[in-house]
Amino acid sequence: MKRKNRLSKAAYVEGILAGDRLVLSRAITLVESTNQADLALADEVLSDVLPHTGKAMRVGITGVPGVGKSTFIEAFGSHLTSNGQQLAVLTIDPSSQKTKGSILGDKTRMEELARDPNAFIRPSASGSTLGGVSNKTREVMLLCEAAGFDVILIETVGVGQSETLVHGMVDFFLLLMLAGAGDELQGIKKGIMEMAHAVVINKADGDNLKPAKRAKVEYQNALHLFPADPSGWVPQVKICSARDKTGIAEVWEMMQKHSEQVTTNGFLQSNRQAQQLSWFKENVQELLGSKFYRSEQVKAELEILTQKVKAGEVPALKAAHQLVDVFFGG
Amino acid sequence: MKRKNRLSKAAYVEGILAGDRLVLSRAITLVESTNQADLALADEVLSDVLPHTGKAMRVGITGVPGVGKSTFIEAFGSHLTSNGQQLAVLTIDPSSQKTKGSILGDKTRMEELARDPNAFIRPSASGSTLGGVSNKTREVMLLCEAAGFDVILIETVGVGQSETLVHGMVDFFLLLMLAGAGDELQGIKKGIMEMAHAVVINKADGDNLKPAKRAKVEYQNALHLFPADPSGWVPQVKICSARDKTGIAEVWEMMQKHSEQVTTNGFLQSNRQAQQLSWFKENVQELLGSKFYRSEQVKAELEILTQKVKAGEVPALKAAHQLVDVFFGG
Ligand SMILES: Nc1nc2c(ncn2[C@@H]2O[C@H](COP(=O)(O)OP(=O)(O)O)[C@@H](O)[C@H]2O)c(=O)[nH]1
Ligand SMILES: Nc1nc2c(ncn2[C@@H]2O[C@H](COP(=O)(O)OP(=O)(O)O)[C@@H](O)[C@H]2O)c(=O)[nH]1
Ligand SMILES: [Mg+2]
Ligand SMILES: [Mg+2]
Repeated sequence: MKRKNRLSKAAYVEGILAGDRLVLSRAITLVESTNQADLALADEVLSDVLPHTGKAMRVGITGVPGVGKSTFIEAFGSHLTSNGQQLAVLTIDPSSQKTKGSILGDKTRMEELARDPNAFIRPSASGSTLGGVSNKTREVMLLCEAAGFDVILIETVGVGQSETLVHGMVDFFLLLMLAGAGDELQGIKKGIMEMAHAVVINKADGDNLKPAKRAKVEYQNALHLFPADPSGWVPQVKICSARDKTGIAEVWEMMQKHSEQVTTNGFLQSNRQAQQLSWFKENVQELLGSKFYRSEQVKAELEILTQKVKAGEVPALKAAHQLVDVFFGG
Repeated sequence: MKRKNRLSKAAYVEGILAGDRLVLSRAITLVESTNQADLALADEVLSDVLPHTGKAMRVGITGVPGVGKSTFIEAFGSHLTSNGQQLAVLTIDPSSQKTKGSILGDKTRMEELARDPNAFIRPSASGSTLGGVSNKTREVMLLCEAAGFDVILIETVGVGQSETLVHGMVDFFLLLMLAGAGDELQGIKKGIMEMAHAVVINKADGDNLKPAKRAKVEYQNALHLFPADPSGWVPQVKICSARDKTGIAEVWEMMQKHSEQVTTNGFLQSNRQAQQLSWFKENVQELLGSKFYRSEQVKAELEILTQKVKAGEVPALKAAHQLVDVFFGG
């Protein structure tokens, strides 16, 4: 965002609270900027809209590429908006950093939703954890909530680290899968299945319907063996066809049930508070780390020490002490 | 450790490499010390023995309290030593920080092993991640390897964060469970099942044998649905009775098979290198964080900001900036 395109703080805040999509978009760009002045203004805008956040249902959705996330979001989103809900879709696509290709592909797959006045689709820069632009999806989510969206859907690919990030910012985490797991599952990261509030088996259509039903039973049995969720929620398994738009309403009903349960038993609030605090701590660690790893001396020493640790010449702990001493001039 | 009890570097190194248990014990105490001079010496000792590490099989074992970890280790350990193996058992017990009670309890449950000249049992201070003494189990493991142990068994309780720590330092991660999961599983942390190379169902004796066999089939089916391990290893499910010492040999055979597989396909080496590097990075983060959170100004501001973030008065990101600015005087 060029400086001359920056609005005043009041203009951002008023525009967001009025649900003005254009202002919201520009506020998101501001939050995702790397310019210090932009970020300072973004901080203030966020502070001002903060009291107006927290009312949306926050949903994360993940799955390997090709499982049908975009198609599912198109079907699910249209179901929601036709039920009078306002929906924001944020996508974190690590691959988009380089090519931007998949986002374009997604836009064509979410054609209906992209034209829907009650939907708002926005790809989110995936960012990096160390030394670079950090991921701002959480801040973007808050802006969208302040703008009045009822449901925020955050999509990510289940093969990297972003799904842990997303799990840490949503109320409901959905894993989209395919029947005949073997091959397709290779890509999913370990630990993701256990984080899911629901496993939804997509492409349950045509010849795939029977295997999908069988897989549903298998996953149901498997999830029963998992540790219980602290919220008291028992992970569900559903089947759907994003293409044929079957099973979509059931997924939405399940989410509403979950929402009711965690609102009633107080878990929603305590969980969000805990998420907020760990997000604070993570940001501190990241800011510290980014100051640290930006130092030229640290960079030079890091390269040397990494080689030595790899070769087994220096114990990791000693190497860490040496690197930190370089920074603090000890 | 009092200063006067400190040995010379050469005495530590020679003693460790000669397999002298008394010197090993004192070196471990040195590594776990909070005294700066001790730690500097410990760093040097570690550096010197480093070329003699890496030859042991590193095994992690976890499970909820009462599942039978200590009893299992007694049976498993005796099986190993009677087969000519030298075994070191390190236990990380978060509860022991306060009471030290459970360690005592363990000692009585590992009576045979405690008297076994080929076994070495050592509780490891669980440490804390921020601002305190950090966990030194990895360094202790290296000392034990240099002292010539063939197998290092690291025990922890599967209800906190230590099992992720342990998973990050071993070659084989074993989850001990009970049949009739429901109740007992409540305590296990999410994500642990997916990290396990094997689930071993203990107390498969008496009336429990049948349910254990049934549980074995269930878990086998469930683990098949999990994402594949990058090593190519397929998680196994076994049953055993630590009390009756049945099924113990099978567990050991399984571990040997795993060891063979990952040695042959090169995963062992690449995994250990990756573990080493992330341990280096984690130590850097921890040292940075500990310098940071020890600052009096940071402490004071942290308290205020935590309340504000909790109350939703300040966005987490802004709070993080403020806290970091306090430290760097920005
Ligand atoms: N048969 C069938 N195909 C589907 C379904 N959902 C998505 N697809 C197809 O699967 C492919 C990948 O879908 P996409 O939504 O781009 O997956 P993503 O990579 O997870 O976003 C496309 O060719 C879709 O048309 C479904 O429910 N049934
Ligand atoms: N029946 C039976 N009891 C066992 C077995 N293993 C352990 N126990 C009992 O279970 C209780 C807890 O065992 P312990 O080894 O202390 O468990 P830990 O807390 O996981 O270390 C003790 O009373 C043991 O005697 C087993 O294989 N069969
Ligand atoms: Mg897509
Ligand atoms: Mg025990």
